[in-house]
Amino acid sequence: MAGNSFGKLLVLTTFGESHGPAIGGVLDGFPPGVVIDLEEVQKALDKRKPGQSSITTQRKESDQVELLSGVFEGKSTGAPIGFLIRNEDAKSKDYSHIKDTYRPSHADYAYDQKYGIRDYRGGGRSSARETACRVVAGALAGLWLKQHGIEVRAFVSQVGNVSLDKQLQIPSENQVEANMVRCPDPKIAAEMIALIEQVKKAGDTVGGKVTCIASGVPAGIGDPVFDKLHADLAKAMMSINAVKAFEIGSGVEAAKMLGSEHNDIFMQDGVTKTNYSGGIQGGISNGNLIECAVTFKPVATIMLDQQSIDKEGNETVVKGKGRHDPCVVPRAVPIVEAMMLLTIADHFLRQKAIQA
Amino acid sequence: MAGNSFGKLLVLTTFGESHGPAIGGVLDGFPPGVVIDLEEVQKALDKRKPGQSSITTQRKESDQVELLSGVFEGKSTGAPIGFLIRNEDAKSKDYSHIKDTYRPSHADYAYDQKYGIRDYRGGGRSSARETACRVVAGALAGLWLKQHGIEVRAFVSQVGNVSLDKQLQIPSENQVEANMVRCPDPKIAAEMIALIEQVKKAGDTVGGKVTCIASGVPAGIGDPVFDKLHADLAKAMMSINAVKAFEIGSGVEAAKMLGSEHNDIFMQDGVTKTNYSGGIQGGISNGNLIECAVTFKPVATIMLDQQSIDKEGNETVVKGKGRHDPCVVPRAVPIVEAMMLLTIADHFLRQKAIQA
Amino acid sequence: MAGNSFGKLLVLTTFGESHGPAIGGVLDGFPPGVVIDLEEVQKALDKRKPGQSSITTQRKESDQVELLSGVFEGKSTGAPIGFLIRNEDAKSKDYSHIKDTYRPSHADYAYDQKYGIRDYRGGGRSSARETACRVVAGALAGLWLKQHGIEVRAFVSQVGNVSLDKQLQIPSENQVEANMVRCPDPKIAAEMIALIEQVKKAGDTVGGKVTCIASGVPAGIGDPVFDKLHADLAKAMMSINAVKAFEIGSGVEAAKMLGSEHNDIFMQDGVTKTNYSGGIQGGISNGNLIECAVTFKPVATIMLDQQSIDKEGNETVVKGKGRHDPCVVPRAVPIVEAMMLLTIADHFLRQKAIQA
Amino acid sequence: MAGNSFGKLLVLTTFGESHGPAIGGVLDGFPPGVVIDLEEVQKALDKRKPGQSSITTQRKESDQVELLSGVFEGKSTGAPIGFLIRNEDAKSKDYSHIKDTYRPSHADYAYDQKYGIRDYRGGGRSSARETACRVVAGALAGLWLKQHGIEVRAFVSQVGNVSLDKQLQIPSENQVEANMVRCPDPKIAAEMIALIEQVKKAGDTVGGKVTCIASGVPAGIGDPVFDKLHADLAKAMMSINAVKAFEIGSGVEAAKMLGSEHNDIFMQDGVTKTNYSGGIQGGISNGNLIECAVTFKPVATIMLDQQSIDKEGNETVVKGKGRHDPCVVPRAVPIVEAMMLLTIADHFLRQKAIQA
Repeated sequence: MAGNSFGKLLVLTTFGESHGPAIGGVLDGFPPGVVIDLEEVQKALDKRKPGQSSITTQRKESDQVELLSGVFEGKSTGAPIGFLIRNEDAKSKDYSHIKDTYRPSHADYAYDQKYGIRDYRGGGRSSARETACRVVAGALAGLWLKQHGIEVRAFVSQVGNVSLDKQLQIPSENQVEANMVRCPDPKIAAEMIALIEQVKKAGDTVGGKVTCIASGVPAGIGDPVFDKLHADLAKAMMSINAVKAFEIGSGVEAAKMLGSEHNDIFMQDGVTKTNYSGGIQGGISNGNLIECAVTFKPVATIMLDQQSIDKEGNETVVKGKGRHDPCVVPRAVPIVEAMMLLTIADHFLRQKAIQA
Repeated sequence: MAGNSFGKLLVLTTFGESHGPAIGGVLDGFPPGVVIDLEEVQKALDKRKPGQSSITTQRKESDQVELLSGVFEGKSTGAPIGFLIRNEDAKSKDYSHIKDTYRPSHADYAYDQKYGIRDYRGGGRSSARETACRVVAGALAGLWLKQHGIEVRAFVSQVGNVSLDKQLQIPSENQVEANMVRCPDPKIAAEMIALIEQVKKAGDTVGGKVTCIASGVPAGIGDPVFDKLHADLAKAMMSINAVKAFEIGSGVEAAKMLGSEHNDIFMQDGVTKTNYSGGIQGGISNGNLIECAVTFKPVATIMLDQQSIDKEGNETVVKGKGRHDPCVVPRAVPIVEAMMLLTIADHFLRQKAIQA
Repeated sequence: MAGNSFGKLLVLTTFGESHGPAIGGVLDGFPPGVVIDLEEVQKALDKRKPGQSSITTQRKESDQVELLSGVFEGKSTGAPIGFLIRNEDAKSKDYSHIKDTYRPSHADYAYDQKYGIRDYRGGGRSSARETACRVVAGALAGLWLKQHGIEVRAFVSQVGNVSLDKQLQIPSENQVEANMVRCPDPKIAAEMIALIEQVKKAGDTVGGKVTCIASGVPAGIGDPVFDKLHADLAKAMMSINAVKAFEIGSGVEAAKMLGSEHNDIFMQDGVTKTNYSGGIQGGISNGNLIECAVTFKPVATIMLDQQSIDKEGNETVVKGKGRHDPCVVPRAVPIVEAMMLLTIADHFLRQKAIQA
Repeated sequence: MAGNSFGKLLVLTTFGESHGPAIGGVLDGFPPGVVIDLEEVQKALDKRKPGQSSITTQRKESDQVELLSGVFEGKSTGAPIGFLIRNEDAKSKDYSHIKDTYRPSHADYAYDQKYGIRDYRGGGRSSARETACRVVAGALAGLWLKQHGIEVRAFVSQVGNVSLDKQLQIPSENQVEANMVRCPDPKIAAEMIALIEQVKKAGDTVGGKVTCIASGVPAGIGDPVFDKLHADLAKAMMSINAVKAFEIGSGVEAAKMLGSEHNDIFMQDGVTKTNYSGGIQGGISNGNLIECAVTFKPVATIMLDQQSIDKEGNETVVKGKGRHDPCVVPRAVPIVEAMMLLTIADHFLRQKAIQA
């Protein structure tokens, strides 16, 4: 309830700073008796890992997760799953120049205003490093949801002006992992990579979009009114660093549409002809693919000089230093998947509670 | 926690169905000693009221709010504020034709799948009538925030293909209320109204967008990580009926931008040159205008015949009946304001708790 | 989360003051499809009603509950159940003498310190009148639990020095309702009534104890660590006005016992030989009777003059006025039952969520 | 919300099993800028440590706490404080005999019924070893509360039939720590120690009571209705392993008292003549000492043979093995203090949020 927890019945609490000894989390409410395949969890984590390709940051972190509790003889016990990822390649020196300076479009200034104290090393608690813990928890949730036939796949659907057409099916993991930008269309992927490399060369960064699809979610998941499934998905996604927009189904395009176009006609078998609803109606899943899109801004740290102010309000220049991604979306894919997995798992448990 | 409550320290719980005896709510955690101007609350409610203009539904509801508790001698006492709005013009007969039929892009099918039982009259709990309770609670929160210099204003920024340019300042209430579509630019407003009237004539509906701006929010409001201020705003807005997208600051445009363009440069006085961040960085307000946009789909109920299925899965035709809005955004303005007021008030209280 | 809600999946929120227009509540998370027998609910409420016998307060309230939502054609729909009880016989004049005076062992002083404002009429929000809402909600929960074979019965086990022996079985409703003090042993009941009448004549009040037993609760209900079933029961009971102690199973007697005495030996069929555990081990029900005891202090309002202070800190004398019970336990019986029903129902839903 | 978290604004989440690699926790919502004296925290932990005296279990654990986050340059940052205690002297072999057997009055049977799987080693998650995490968090809360003049002290007030008279003042830490049973009266302490040694020699265990007093708590802390300060204290204390009763102020004695005796008369200075209220009225602190008592049952593990059943329901004999305390109350003292510190700190933050 103090901002570092997510979920109602399946609750993830995370802790840790970018340059502290470790980051970690507690996943509480996980159902008992689920076989915990730690390799699957590590695989998800490796997709988020820095230094994995030429278009990601060169920070090196092995990001090995250690489970500390909640698993006995390979199965979940119902007790909270505590886990830890040690920080290794923290180069705090890289950040001493921003100790008293506010980087543009970072959290530095806002944190100082809120807390009156700030662990400036690597962004401290505001670093996207925290999201590694979400990936661990999401992968664990995925192990359970898989047993219920639910699959979640995210992929890059836009980088700058290069965008992918709407996908009508959930792509396979292989399609997404076939290239380093994680776009299931190889031709578009090549364009995206070229754009990112060009931006990187210029010392700049570029924004993008991640689309996420869930298949196999039965109808009836989600709570009406405030805890609508897509409202909770929105919160889940907007809580990821650098996210500026959340869209469900038709998204911002809905503003331009007519009701006669937008309405999803029910077919004989309960499935709808179109899916502008994004698989959710009245906040509750209707059995179709759940589909949302998440817009990421360009990474704020650029390798160019920028004007700013320091703690005393004096003008200063922020130099681009540290190791950062030219475009965050390829590494955001496993994070978006994790947040959707956690959200669906939480609501799945909630629905089980009231079902006859 | 069961889906009908919103907020952590300032908690709104609502109840009631479209055609039941009443709708209402409880606002808990409201600070004591605030002068409760019931006229202000009723004024907000009147903006949401059906039947207020030629471009809204003709259902007649006086929507008089009755406060039942939490106020003593004109001031809040710190006790929960219970309130009630009686339903008056419920024409349940209008809905008997959908008792066993699923209207396209409505919640009918999903509710039946979730609960196995459904109050079909007027959409029951899934009706947007519930949002009247949010308007009451939001207006109450607004009375308190006003004391702290915080003002929130929403307005219509898009209807179909007609859109308003980005506003760099918070418009006045008079500017917004000057026309029945609630767009602060009179020329654009006229175009929007013309479009809605044309769509209405065709028995169709059209989508749109509401922009919402808060001024006077001090830096430091919002919690990092999961309860980022814009994540909670996203949830707040996506929980409103018919919303398909939420954008903070640059929104979906961020995907196309470069870091060197998107970064908001801090000026001497802590204010930023641009405001692509939408007044929030790292989940925490930075003292600039908080600005978000909310996309509404076209109303699902149209006055045209549509193909669908019934409870047994048989094909059927849904006839357009009942009284509905051709475009929901003008009446959505006070609802969007209410959700932003509630979200900011909740986080304002949270920040007070940890401040030295 | 602001103090006026109880439960996690089945959440009761109450509102209302003793002398305001009405008290009421919202019960959210109630399972759909349960037949709502309003007469059963009213019956429970009548047991708590003032003026029901010669040993209770003479305030007259018909305490008719009005359900406002969440029920359709006689069955729960899964939507929140809003309900209202209008206040009728509020004699606010009786309280004008305490507007600026702090009654000993009442909440007057503490409320003023907390909120800086106080609805002094009838104790405002601190009045035990609020518990009528709990009785409504508890009775609704009871309708659902009954379907699962769970029954809860409270009864008076002590008044002053008169106490009942430990009950090894759940008494029937008829046994409890056979006398106005609600003690299932007629001989002890007579002694209790005599004591209360004697105390009443002296203008004084006396404390007592209510024991509450649940039968039919399956093993496995309750969460380990912080949300132990008996920890939540303790909170539930201690939140009732005038409660000073909560005991589960052996209670305070456990301090004197040896492990070899206190251990409950498992018998062939899972049932234990003794039940010092009170049906709960490690926070989880073990299938035996759940048994707890709740101690109530003597009512603070006595018909005798008492020394006190006023708002300015001046010495003053509080005169005994208003209409109050000489002993609260007979009317506390339905309240204690309600809180146990709500606690068990909440945990029952929580267990359903994680069960295979 | 899944049972392993405590608090609303200051939230402790714990994880870990008795014989897993580590136990630990996350304390979220901790105010920024508090100097973190790790020695104070370790000192509290050492009071709970096994093997500290001849009347406690001989399990050896150094119980060194490692802080992983939330502290920067010696001060809290407002970020969650993650911490870890590695398990060292886990002798899992000692427990193989109970893999398929249910120990009387332990959580074994109930866990199996709830989860269908059980980490039987050392009791797994049901072990009181979890409470070490509460002590860490409570000590951290204490560092902050001390700054506000709030002090909390627990001490042993009963062992078997030996009991201490009611304390009218908060004893000093030195008085409590002067003897190994942690009773501030040396003569009574000697009797308690003699009793425990005698019981230990007999292979048996004995119950007891811990009293806990808070001084310096300002009036106005605590929420009315469900989150009464003493209701939350009750939950806090009842959630500690082996607790069977919670009493505030007069406690179970209140049942026997008259109103004219029990009422606490306000004196000129706001302080009351007596303190049967235990410093709380209407759920809110009134500025007097907050005083409660917590009853612990005799430890269930005894060194005597006991009849029981195994997983298949067959009769079996449980032999007394493992390393356990003959009486739990001396080591419970820091745990009770921790839970009171956490409860008061949480409500202190809540009150700050609504204060003008």
